[in-house]
Amino acid sequence: MLKAAIDTDTFRETIDVIAALVTECRMHIGEDGLKTRAVDTANVAMISLDLSKEAFSSFVATECDLGIDIAKMKSIIGMMGKGDELTLELPEGGNKMEMVFSGYQYSVTLLDGNTIRKDPQLPNIDLPAKIRISGAAINDGIKAASVISDKIALGVDAASGIFYMEAEGDSDHIRLERGSDILISLEPSDVRSLFSLDYLRDMGKVMARADVVEVQIGNDHPVRVSFDFADGHGHVDFLLAPRIEAD
Amino acid sequence: MLKAAIDTDTFRETIDVIAALVTECRMHIGEDGLKTRAVDTANVAMISLDLSKEAFSSFVATECDLGIDIAKMKSIIGMMGKGDELTLELPEGGNKMEMVFSGYQYSVTLLDGNTIRKDPQLPNIDLPAKIRISGAAINDGIKAASVISDKIALGVDAASGIFYMEAEGDSDHIRLERGSDILISLEPSDVRSLFSLDYLRDMGKVMARADVVEVQIGNDHPVRVSFDFADGHGHVDFLLAPRIEAD
Amino acid sequence: MLKAAIDTDTFRETIDVIAALVTECRMHIGEDGLKTRAVDTANVAMISLDLSKEAFSSFVATECDLGIDIAKMKSIIGMMGKGDELTLELPEGGNKMEMVFSGYQYSVTLLDGNTIRKDPQLPNIDLPAKIRISGAAINDGIKAASVISDKIALGVDAASGIFYMEAEGDSDHIRLERGSDILISLEPSDVRSLFSLDYLRDMGKVMARADVVEVQIGNDHPVRVSFDFADGHGHVDFLLAPRIEAD
Repeated sequence: MLKAAIDTDTFRETIDVIAALVTECRMHIGEDGLKTRAVDTANVAMISLDLSKEAFSSFVATECDLGIDIAKMKSIIGMMGKGDELTLELPEGGNKMEMVFSGYQYSVTLLDGNTIRKDPQLPNIDLPAKIRISGAAINDGIKAASVISDKIALGVDAASGIFYMEAEGDSDHIRLERGSDILISLEPSDVRSLFSLDYLRDMGKVMARADVVEVQIGNDHPVRVSFDFADGHGHVDFLLAPRIEAD
Repeated sequence: MLKAAIDTDTFRETIDVIAALVTECRMHIGEDGLKTRAVDTANVAMISLDLSKEAFSSFVATECDLGIDIAKMKSIIGMMGKGDELTLELPEGGNKMEMVFSGYQYSVTLLDGNTIRKDPQLPNIDLPAKIRISGAAINDGIKAASVISDKIALGVDAASGIFYMEAEGDSDHIRLERGSDILISLEPSDVRSLFSLDYLRDMGKVMARADVVEVQIGNDHPVRVSFDFADGHGHVDFLLAPRIEAD
Repeated sequence: MLKAAIDTDTFRETIDVIAALVTECRMHIGEDGLKTRAVDTANVAMISLDLSKEAFSSFVATECDLGIDIAKMKSIIGMMGKGDELTLELPEGGNKMEMVFSGYQYSVTLLDGNTIRKDPQLPNIDLPAKIRISGAAINDGIKAASVISDKIALGVDAASGIFYMEAEGDSDHIRLERGSDILISLEPSDVRSLFSLDYLRDMGKVMARADVVEVQIGNDHPVRVSFDFADGHGHVDFLLAPRIEAD
């Protein structure tokens, strides 16, 4: 059972973050809010997202799982105005969720939870370097690398205290360095891992809205990207597996 | 014969309204202004448009019919600035209309009127419910319904004084209700008819500019949509045939 | 050898002008700046562009030729902010140019100069009519003509002191006249030549930014279009061959 109200901007932000990775997900509703854990079809990227009940203007719920068609939700948020209120209502045991906003009554049939991939376990990995930086600064590097390559290396040079993003094209090379003037904080370690831009491009777009993004990097290890949204009432972790660096 | 001047914004509005339904039309010029009656190729929708000579800054004409290529007119209005003046000139018996605006002299060969479909008769139908509402409010409902379906029901609930727009998708349902807080006026009657969104989407875009749109609805009957444009010197009626509601 | 700094807006303008005609070019670097002479693949249009060292905030160079992939440069300028500084560095005998701007280090492999077409000679032609006009006024005429045709005539009517642009569609005709109220200057002569809009459309877009464009026209002769950019430190000549006017 779920009966909640939330401003449309926060709802839109939540859907946009999930949409960066998956087209459907299982949303776990509990007394304290909602959470989702999802992995993309190729098993390369994971998302863990939490939105606490404080993000809602009202929130009453018993435990349940909602099968959400994220692509359809993207169309629906396209109709919502800015600063409207959205109410969500799902009766006990029901599979049609009512969404009401500015005179619209939208009845959405939920997906069957059994058809959605099982929740992944977020692995516990030790990633020695940790930087904090604005999301826009990372997104700029991702966009620049995309021009010449489909892969990007993220790394830290401990001695100079530099976080770098680097890409190698057929004939060109690009390197973007961010030092203490731009980094919010740095726990240095000499690390470097290579990632597919296919995934990072979509993640970069949603990161770009966050003032502070925490990036944890290892050597040929996954990267973990974490940031808050919904005025601190929401939190997301992305985990992206590395690509092997060809010699 | 026609010799007239009109501001380019009014001319653009006129062409846009006609373009919502047809790609060519026969324009009847008379001493008092112009009018056009056209039906789309599938015989599903009709337009009746009048623009009085008061909409023009100057207007001298004898009776004649102009075969207008609306698609070409759309390209031409794309060149016009805002607030310019357009002069139209067609000699007696001529088939090339001169259009002059801001240094441009455009000579357009008119279509042969015999190749354009005959003017339709606007049927006289009794449609018991009549609402008046802003065009933007209707267009919002049309856009929302388009997300989940290719058909939309328009209806009035007499008891509650509600005008509603409703669409049924494969698994979803959307309903937009407009009550006395948004309706400008309502002549209630319990009615409901179903329409193709293919047509309403284009009509919705031109309606959206009108502050007041009059909508007349019956039971499984055509809908009639009427509104003024050109500061009240123009008037348009759209008539759209219903779709059969499948059970 | 080249070691120079330039503001990104001036660099973007330079690349845009060249990109109107060719996708790669040979840039000649000398002590006083750079220049390029290029002809399009169909031998219909030529560009001659000069950018003096005064356009740069610093400029140290020995003579060398750079093979520039203009399409790639368009992607790179897409990453540059407004009002940033770009530094260019090419070591003696090197073939990788370093481009550094706002934290980015871009290493671009230059094209092999031998694979690029030889520099054309700009022919010395006597074109009797010369007008000076804003680039935007020409671009407007080019856009208007494109709606109905793929060719445009440029001409001067000496008696009335009019510069005209004229196009003939299958059934329509458009003529744009510019007289002494809009022309900056006119050296009159009765001339008229026909040109392909394929070329003029791209040229028109870059011309549109210039306050003053000099256009030299003859009878069935090429047109020469010249204008300054980069605050007068850059100059470009376009030369476009005429089309034969079919009777």
